[in-house]
Amino acid sequence: MSKQDRAIRTRQTILRAAAKVFEEHGYQAATISEILSEAGVTKGALYFHFQSKEHLAQGVLTEQNNEFTVPERPSKLQELVDTTMLHAHRLQTDPMVRASVRLAMDQNQPTLDRSTPFLTWSKTAHHLLDHAQTQGELLPHVIPHQTADVFVGAFGGVQAMSQALNEYTDLHHRVSNLLRHLLPAIAQPPIIATLHMTPTRGHDVYQEIQTHHTTPTPTHPLRRHF
Amino acid sequence: MSKQDRAIRTRQTILRAAAKVFEEHGYQAATISEILSEAGVTKGALYFHFQSKEHLAQGVLTEQNNEFTVPERPSKLQELVDTTMLHAHRLQTDPMVRASVRLAMDQNQPTLDRSTPFLTWSKTAHHLLDHAQTQGELLPHVIPHQTADVFVGAFGGVQAMSQALNEYTDLHHRVSNLLRHLLPAIAQPPIIATLHMTPTRGHDVYQEIQTHHTTPTPTHPLRRHF
Repeated sequence: MSKQDRAIRTRQTILRAAAKVFEEHGYQAATISEILSEAGVTKGALYFHFQSKEHLAQGVLTEQNNEFTVPERPSKLQELVDTTMLHAHRLQTDPMVRASVRLAMDQNQPTLDRSTPFLTWSKTAHHLLDHAQTQGELLPHVIPHQTADVFVGAFGGVQAMSQALNEYTDLHHRVSNLLRHLLPAIAQPPIIATLHMTPTRGHDVYQEIQTHHTTPTPTHPLRRHF
Repeated sequence: MSKQDRAIRTRQTILRAAAKVFEEHGYQAATISEILSEAGVTKGALYFHFQSKEHLAQGVLTEQNNEFTVPERPSKLQELVDTTMLHAHRLQTDPMVRASVRLAMDQNQPTLDRSTPFLTWSKTAHHLLDHAQTQGELLPHVIPHQTADVFVGAFGGVQAMSQALNEYTDLHHRVSNLLRHLLPAIAQPPIIATLHMTPTRGHDVYQEIQTHHTTPTPTHPLRRHF
């Protein structure tokens, strides 16, 4: 393993540990020493990658979008649906994603820039909607950047409601419902008829990615920060 | 002023003070002594109404829905739109509403029951959607309780995104956009054509309530806990 590969791996280990601690205790209560003992790395290694707790939180916030790429679909609306449902599935199963969303929704740290995940997701959705528009999938009145913000904002709240009511148990159902309420306002009816957006879609896409495990394209918007 | 009126007024003063402190510092950092000095009441008066910081937070969470009643409309979808847009307007202008929403969205206190505001709002929306269905305003496939949860969840996230990006400055635009994306999936087209849901709607409804200042009907779902 090259020195660079090792550095990347150590950085990942630290971020996973930070995510776990942030998710369990919240940003305010989390301590660097707890993250150190969770990661099993030296203080020097941690501070080489992250100067402070704030930098660790920022790292978790940026990281959540970088690991999974939804396979390309002929319908860009299907790709948007898949991205959304996969994110719901990962929220149910991946502490890093939960920690990041928790940080983004948490108003208790005014020093933390919480806009990053909203803007990153919005850019991803905007990109897919632009593409969908070019392909004629959208109704004529749709303004992609407005619709992108509605998708991202609405998802953020639906996940918060599911978390508050039952710790994400019903999240896939709620997100499927959300999509069934949003798509009719933007998609051409023949396209809607082709879309898969049942509650199991996120799990299916996840399985598909695990099975094929294709190397992600670096230019894909979801991997922009990698 | 009767003894009972005075007690109600003191309770309100304490809740307003608690809301202000919770909004400024978050639940964890807020202290009873800060709330006491903000409210200007005695320790005895505070503990008569609220046994603990947790009870104060629960009071704020329950209180947000109790003060404003949207005027009845012939279209119950318009009433749902008005309720949503008025809430957005009050988030922009009322610290009590901001504090309550902040508490509901804050995952940092596992001891606090954060489901109350979600469930209360969902019940209100469900009630209006049931009524709208009876009047033939909804498309045939709509399941009111599912749509109610989508509205409430989506609103929660859109407000969080607006707060994170620009401290609620553009909230009325974002909520108007959200409604334009949700209504086509549930409303009969001739009804949509009659709905007022431009960004200024919340402000207009607020002015209407201030001008007429009708005594609220106690049976209205928004006043259930009063």
